Amino acid sequence: MSIQKPSIPKGTRDFGPAVVARRNYIFGIIRRTFEKFGFAPLETPTLENLSVLTGKYGEEGDQLLFKVLNSGDFLKDVVAEDLVAGTKKVLPKIAEKGLRYDLTVPFARYVVMNRHQLTFPFKRYQIQPVWRADRPQRGRYREFYQCDADVVGTDSLLCEAEIVLMMTEVLNDLGLTDFTIKINHRRVLSAIYQALGGEGTEIDLFTAIDKLDKIGREGVEKELTGRGFSQDAIEKLFALLSVEGPFTEKLERLLAGFVTAGVPPENEQGYKGLQDLQRVVDLLQQSGYQDFAHLDFDVTLARGLSYYTGCIFEIKINNVNMGSVSGGGRYDNLTGAFGLPGVSGVGFSFGVDRLYDCLDELNLFPAATQTTTICLIANFDAEAESAALPVLRQLREAGIPSELYPDHKDKLKKQFQYADQKGIPFLLLQGSEERIQNKFKLKNMRTSAEQLLPLDEVLTALTQAQ
Amino acid sequence: MSIQKPSIPKGTRDFGPAVVARRNYIFGIIRRTFEKFGFAPLETPTLENLSVLTGKYGEEGDQLLFKVLNSGDFLKDVVAEDLVAGTKKVLPKIAEKGLRYDLTVPFARYVVMNRHQLTFPFKRYQIQPVWRADRPQRGRYREFYQCDADVVGTDSLLCEAEIVLMMTEVLNDLGLTDFTIKINHRRVLSAIYQALGGEGTEIDLFTAIDKLDKIGREGVEKELTGRGFSQDAIEKLFALLSVEGPFTEKLERLLAGFVTAGVPPENEQGYKGLQDLQRVVDLLQQSGYQDFAHLDFDVTLARGLSYYTGCIFEIKINNVNMGSVSGGGRYDNLTGAFGLPGVSGVGFSFGVDRLYDCLDELNLFPAATQTTTICLIANFDAEAESAALPVLRQLREAGIPSELYPDHKDKLKKQFQYADQKGIPFLLLQGSEERIQNKFKLKNMRTSAEQLLPLDEVLTALTQAQ
Repeated sequence: MSIQKPSIPKGTRDFGPAVVARRNYIFGIIRRTFEKFGFAPLETPTLENLSVLTGKYGEEGDQLLFKVLNSGDFLKDVVAEDLVAGTKKVLPKIAEKGLRYDLTVPFARYVVMNRHQLTFPFKRYQIQPVWRADRPQRGRYREFYQCDADVVGTDSLLCEAEIVLMMTEVLNDLGLTDFTIKINHRRVLSAIYQALGGEGTEIDLFTAIDKLDKIGREGVEKELTGRGFSQDAIEKLFALLSVEGPFTEKLERLLAGFVTAGVPPENEQGYKGLQDLQRVVDLLQQSGYQDFAHLDFDVTLARGLSYYTGCIFEIKINNVNMGSVSGGGRYDNLTGAFGLPGVSGVGFSFGVDRLYDCLDELNLFPAATQTTTICLIANFDAEAESAALPVLRQLREAGIPSELYPDHKDKLKKQFQYADQKGIPFLLLQGSEERIQNKFKLKNMRTSAEQLLPLDEVLTALTQAQ
Repeated sequence: MSIQKPSIPKGTRDFGPAVVARRNYIFGIIRRTFEKFGFAPLETPTLENLSVLTGKYGEEGDQLLFKVLNSGDFLKDVVAEDLVAGTKKVLPKIAEKGLRYDLTVPFARYVVMNRHQLTFPFKRYQIQPVWRADRPQRGRYREFYQCDADVVGTDSLLCEAEIVLMMTEVLNDLGLTDFTIKINHRRVLSAIYQALGGEGTEIDLFTAIDKLDKIGREGVEKELTGRGFSQDAIEKLFALLSVEGPFTEKLERLLAGFVTAGVPPENEQGYKGLQDLQRVVDLLQQSGYQDFAHLDFDVTLARGLSYYTGCIFEIKINNVNMGSVSGGGRYDNLTGAFGLPGVSGVGFSFGVDRLYDCLDELNLFPAATQTTTICLIANFDAEAESAALPVLRQLREAGIPSELYPDHKDKLKKQFQYADQKGIPFLLLQGSEERIQNKFKLKNMRTSAEQLLPLDEVLTALTQAQ
């Protein structure tokens, strides 16, 4: 076994104790909110059959799937001609499993496999890592956590309203104040396409609109012209996109815009989208929702066009330079690919790694999410060690996470450093003098204050300090 | 996209809400114990470089590693002759990453990579899944969780004593009463080998001893004879292995056996092992440990021989037919393979999936680990829905996980079934009559008892019921 300098794969990370504690703080808030809204936990395997994953995330997604080599003689079906034919020919012969790419497709698979046991509407949340062979960059990792909540088996817009409530609650609980929950509706986008007169294709239009904040109006115009949209259509488009104002006013203005543009009233597509959005706003108002200032009806929001069919959502933290920290929407046929059509659902996902980076940048982590050990007992000599053992037991029985420094051969200075570097707030000492008095010296590591106390008062002091 | 009947890879599992809740119950007890003993959480990536994993788990382990195909054109370096040479030639060209196989090797890698930032002794716990391409069977899965706690950077036997304390606390907290914590020492095994007169090899001896409870004395004798051990040596062996009695008496008898067998007193190997075990027992006694009846000095315990050098541990739940649920031991050179020799450490691991099966078989899961939603508000009609929304908000603000049934078009019977099948303990109704009185009907789904209450009393009743 040769000696090697170890490393970890690019795009992956080790999380040390302080970071795990902070991540758990975020997970805890998200989990508590999901459960408060009646979502129950689900976990699916890391390994999924490639037949389940492939073709669900588009051509690019298939490229980004991590594939796992079959075990044993993975080459047994590969012949020399396969090498010439390339990876597409070889892949199905050597790999039948892959790593989970998101939580939505495994959820759909689970629903279909268990449809006879599940109670619908089925509300589940899922907090697990996913893997993508993407190029790593700021806020983008190859292994990262998603926190999803979905309801399937109902088309009630109450679910959309509750997504807004949950998004708001999580962000408020995390201490984030400057955020925008962007909402749009796929049918509104379709109606806009129709209002332009049916030139080009829907998908070209949406792809171009989606880039508005990156390439600006000029860039979008250029792209649309190249895709066969007339100047007249483009002007109609920007008239519709330029609606301004609070949520409900924007809805009204876009409605007026549809009428002006001649979208026929019997076009359920467009008007249904606006009605849905109005209904979500009404439900929020009836719920006593207080944060309308954070909601934006963003006509340019398009999102992953693959399976969304109704309302779509996205959250942007405004005072941090970071992509969206959450997104979601309604889908009418997610389970169709697995043989169960016509099950409407809606869901959304938080990206914990991005939320972490936002909280970190804004200094929003509470100071208390740092340490586990509350008290370190110093270890002078063999006698002190024996005397410390029952004390240690009593501290732990009182629910105070505690350690006895394991080696009395180490100098007291080193033991102090150990407490200091681990962020342990209290040090307990019993030298020969204190032992005669049957007392302990309790040192507050932050203030350096020392108290001479009998054990029961040590327990009380440490319990209160927790 | 063709329609397919979905499935999951063999040896993997979906965990629905009830199972996740029960698993979290186990994780919670283990985590709380680890933290009470001053261990801090660490998480390492699922993907590790194969250079880190390969060669650490023996030849068989290398076979059981899940390897991940390189992304992009994974075939670019493979030529036709490689196919003839076979998988050993092809593997390094197409896969450089693998899935975490245990938590110990990634921990050693982490310690070496971060040795200048870490405070030693470094105590970490780690609760994450691992993957092995093993043949699935009862209690053995291809994806399963390990819960590890390790200390590195000290050879203090206090750490061994604390492992026994933690093992006992976790099992007691889980309600398990009929268990044995088996303890042995690698140096005791080495001394036994020497006592036999130096025939055969150490590893052959240990491998044979390890099988004693499976193949019996006769089987072990046969195996040892085949490996070149004389009848005299074999009889000496069984004389040593046959020591009986409580922990400390066994230690004394084995010591006498070593003297009889002529192990020289200057042989630190054997006597040091016995001294270590006696010291662990002494430390436990000084700590006020009450469960000596659960401890067994099992001279036949050999465990994974790869890296253990000191005390070794294993837990068996006696009233369930299941392999060991926990194991561990001291290692003197785990980080040596990564270029940091001479760092002694000791650790152990719980297998949560086996613990789960034991608790399930013994009916030891508390009934309360089942549901998230406490109260379902029935949804009669549009008017009831609007009236329910602020009530729902107040329930949640009071910390009561609650749902409003999302669709008032569904019959009340269906809504009742929904609450029943999800195990929701309370149903809240407000029909037109109750609305006039400004009261609510609160139905206990288990007892079918109904109360007519104003909202504040509903909140009180549900808060108390949680």
